[in-house]
Amino acid sequence: MAATYELIYWPGAPGRGEHIRLALEEAGASYSDTARLDAQKCADIVWAQMSDNNLGDKNTSPPYAPPILKDGDLLISQTPNILMYLGQRLGLVPSTPEENDIYKINALVLTALDGLSNEVHDCHHPIAKELYYEEQKTEALRRSKEFIKTRLPKFLAYFEKVLKGEASGNGPWLYGGTFTYADLVLFQICLFQPQTDSQNLASSVYRKRDGVREKS
Amino acid sequence: MAATYELIYWPGAPGRGEHIRLALEEAGASYSDTARLDAQKCADIVWAQMSDNNLGDKNTSPPYAPPILKDGDLLISQTPNILMYLGQRLGLVPSTPEENDIYKINALVLTALDGLSNEVHDCHHPIAKELYYEEQKTEALRRSKEFIKTRLPKFLAYFEKVLKGEASGNGPWLYGGTFTYADLVLFQICLFQPQTDSQNLASSVYRKRDGVREKS
Repeated sequence: MAATYELIYWPGAPGRGEHIRLALEEAGASYSDTARLDAQKCADIVWAQMSDNNLGDKNTSPPYAPPILKDGDLLISQTPNILMYLGQRLGLVPSTPEENDIYKINALVLTALDGLSNEVHDCHHPIAKELYYEEQKTEALRRSKEFIKTRLPKFLAYFEKVLKGEASGNGPWLYGGTFTYADLVLFQICLFQPQTDSQNLASSVYRKRDGVREKS
Repeated sequence: MAATYELIYWPGAPGRGEHIRLALEEAGASYSDTARLDAQKCADIVWAQMSDNNLGDKNTSPPYAPPILKDGDLLISQTPNILMYLGQRLGLVPSTPEENDIYKINALVLTALDGLSNEVHDCHHPIAKELYYEEQKTEALRRSKEFIKTRLPKFLAYFEKVLKGEASGNGPWLYGGTFTYADLVLFQICLFQPQTDSQNLASSVYRKRDGVREKS
């Protein structure tokens, strides 16, 4: 039987594709993943989507970049956008959602991706994504130090505050006392980080990481 | 009569608040705007939202940062999230929307904000938002040159491609042959930029800017 969803993403690195994979895996969804193909074949599929010649079709604008999700004829790009779509279809939102829950969860996801995923990526490429790391190593070092000193604690403290707030349902989940795809995003972001002293202020965030890990 | 919506944003700079203002203005919505208050009073309201003591309430997590939109008891943060909410309520999406139009418009908005708003902001603060421009001037100059050389043409070319694609309805609008809030976002981003030689590749994008201007 053909897989329900198709994920189009670069081979060889978890990256932003991994946020989508975690949602699909958590829900036990049937999906194919270009990253499981031969690397060259996968790259060809991604580049075809981004090609100057790809003008999309009558229903769909061309995507800017992967991750890209296909669901039948539907093609969706942009990580938080794909997650919002899948979250509702895969049961990764409250089971009896209030009318505006989706915006509340989306705000948490956008904040987590901005501060703890995009900014981390930019630490490695502070001048331009088109330049090699070696060409911007001095700036990368300076930016990384500042990120660890000011930005990381700021975002971790924010999510601590969210977890302390009543709308989280007193934890361990971020919103509505129930596991949502926002928890998966924060989990992935924290997954590869050791809990250092400077992160002790974010003990609830890290406890949450361990909570998601144990859930699986 | 009390205004329907309340926009909470910093005083003195259009910034990300302006994306929300344009949507509200375009639709002729009734709204109040903290930026119209005395600067100190406005800043006090914004800081209270971001305070360590603000844990939100039982329905709403605390916002990370402005812009913040209040609609009665509902409080929404994050620019693309607010725009998605307002776009549907203010008639800034196709008048007979297909089921998944909202995701297609959101993808365009997220891409425009990422590449042409956030990255421009970061040109000014490539090391850390917490440091003054003067403390990162060398890096800012290097990043700005790279942005103009590689990133700006890449994003402008992308929107040219979108406008050429069939899903735009052959222009002048980005999606579905109709004016949407995505057009307002791209309009604002192009508004303050002169059309230089290097931007001639993006002539449709700039014609679109003029189209939105004439529409008003």
